[in-house]
Amino acid sequence: APGTVWLVGAGPGGPGLLTLLAYRALGEADVVVHDALVSPAILDLAPAHVERIHAGKRGGKPSPKQADITIRLIDLARAGKKVLRLKGGDPFMFGRGGEEAGELSRAGIPFRIVPGISSGLGGLAYAGLPVTHRDTNHTVLFLTGHDETGTVPSAVDWPAVSAAAPVLVMFMAVKHLPIIAERLRAAGRPQHEPVTIVSHAATPGQSVIETTLERVALLEDVPTPAIIVVGPVDAHRANLDWYRAELRSHVFG
Amino acid sequence: APGTVWLVGAGPGGPGLLTLLAYRALGEADVVVHDALVSPAILDLAPAHVERIHAGKRGGKPSPKQADITIRLIDLARAGKKVLRLKGGDPFMFGRGGEEAGELSRAGIPFRIVPGISSGLGGLAYAGLPVTHRDTNHTVLFLTGHDETGTVPSAVDWPAVSAAAPVLVMFMAVKHLPIIAERLRAAGRPQHEPVTIVSHAATPGQSVIETTLERVALLEDVPTPAIIVVGPVDAHRANLDWYRAELRSHVFG
Repeated sequence: APGTVWLVGAGPGGPGLLTLLAYRALGEADVVVHDALVSPAILDLAPAHVERIHAGKRGGKPSPKQADITIRLIDLARAGKKVLRLKGGDPFMFGRGGEEAGELSRAGIPFRIVPGISSGLGGLAYAGLPVTHRDTNHTVLFLTGHDETGTVPSAVDWPAVSAAAPVLVMFMAVKHLPIIAERLRAAGRPQHEPVTIVSHAATPGQSVIETTLERVALLEDVPTPAIIVVGPVDAHRANLDWYRAELRSHVFG
Repeated sequence: APGTVWLVGAGPGGPGLLTLLAYRALGEADVVVHDALVSPAILDLAPAHVERIHAGKRGGKPSPKQADITIRLIDLARAGKKVLRLKGGDPFMFGRGGEEAGELSRAGIPFRIVPGISSGLGGLAYAGLPVTHRDTNHTVLFLTGHDETGTVPSAVDWPAVSAAAPVLVMFMAVKHLPIIAERLRAAGRPQHEPVTIVSHAATPGQSVIETTLERVALLEDVPTPAIIVVGPVDAHRANLDWYRAELRSHVFG
């Protein structure tokens, strides 16, 4: 029988934020091709005989090229395998899932998508940060802090971004955060505007830094992966910070 | 023992996009307080003895006031119940979850958040629409098409929105779509720009309309709920439209 690829989001943290479809796929796959952001507790849900292939892409560390990952998925499927391509967060939110699925489609490989909880949405919920709140915003903008060349995306219109949404959620933006903060300030966002950084969101090791646009340049050693939020959502944290020690002890999430 | 409230996102469609935490909550709750967007197949996962309370808010139809819903949650928790507050999509993405959680916190009710798959992200994936793709966009903006008064949100800076992100994802925007399209055109978005409307996303009844900014005023009877995307993501649909008839027959998703 021909193989298939399920392109699946694993969510931001532990097994509890997996979808039922993702959980089922872990039980049925012949091989799991995962990136560095998928937690060991999730990979442990696959039966012992299932082959695990680490195809992680992680900022600053050597990692397989995107084309090599895609070729591997196609080869495995052509060998008749049921392939689970498991990515942290959601595959279509800065996860390059659209590219991988497009290549599978062009190669004639049957595939399906299983969306996951995005770290930039559900991960922030674990830090008591609602990305929308009717008191503060009717728009929210998500952006990636670096493009495929590793620099701040050149096509971003910072004055427009600055004015378009009170809440800005940034992925992969730790490295270039001082530059980004400076562009937002130059575009008119106040220097005292809150910046909240959630590292290892929705995991027992979650940590949160609360700072401001003018102070981000002083930060050192921000743990990654991290999601960064600019905007007034931090005001809700005092009330909504529900993910306390006793809950963190549950590996399930 | 004191009661608790779990504020949980049910995702856009069937049970397959529930998280494992949401599934567990359905099995353990005393009472489920759900909105109109939660599918019957999901509610059926709760044991028969569990009380179901419909507290739906749905555009254009009579529905309980937000304050009444929150009071109900608090009363149930104070009566010692384990309350599952189940909302379509994600509670923090235009779902008023931040408000409900804030009221619970101020009332001293123990609560936790379980994020869900947002319709504006995972629902679109079921129509082969990646909200980000490195060929097209490093930013994506989400907005709601009406505010608490039922009109187009007045604080939205349409020229900024128009320039900030190649891809705009709109919730609850069917009613005011002609006005919104006109504002985007006035702000410089091309009249031939693709507009893709996904109704009943990630359900067997999913339907997709592909049109343009200049033609949306001609639309009649767009099924709701719907997510609307403005931008070039429609170009991927020919390759990525994986959610076909044989998959739709699975109620699981």
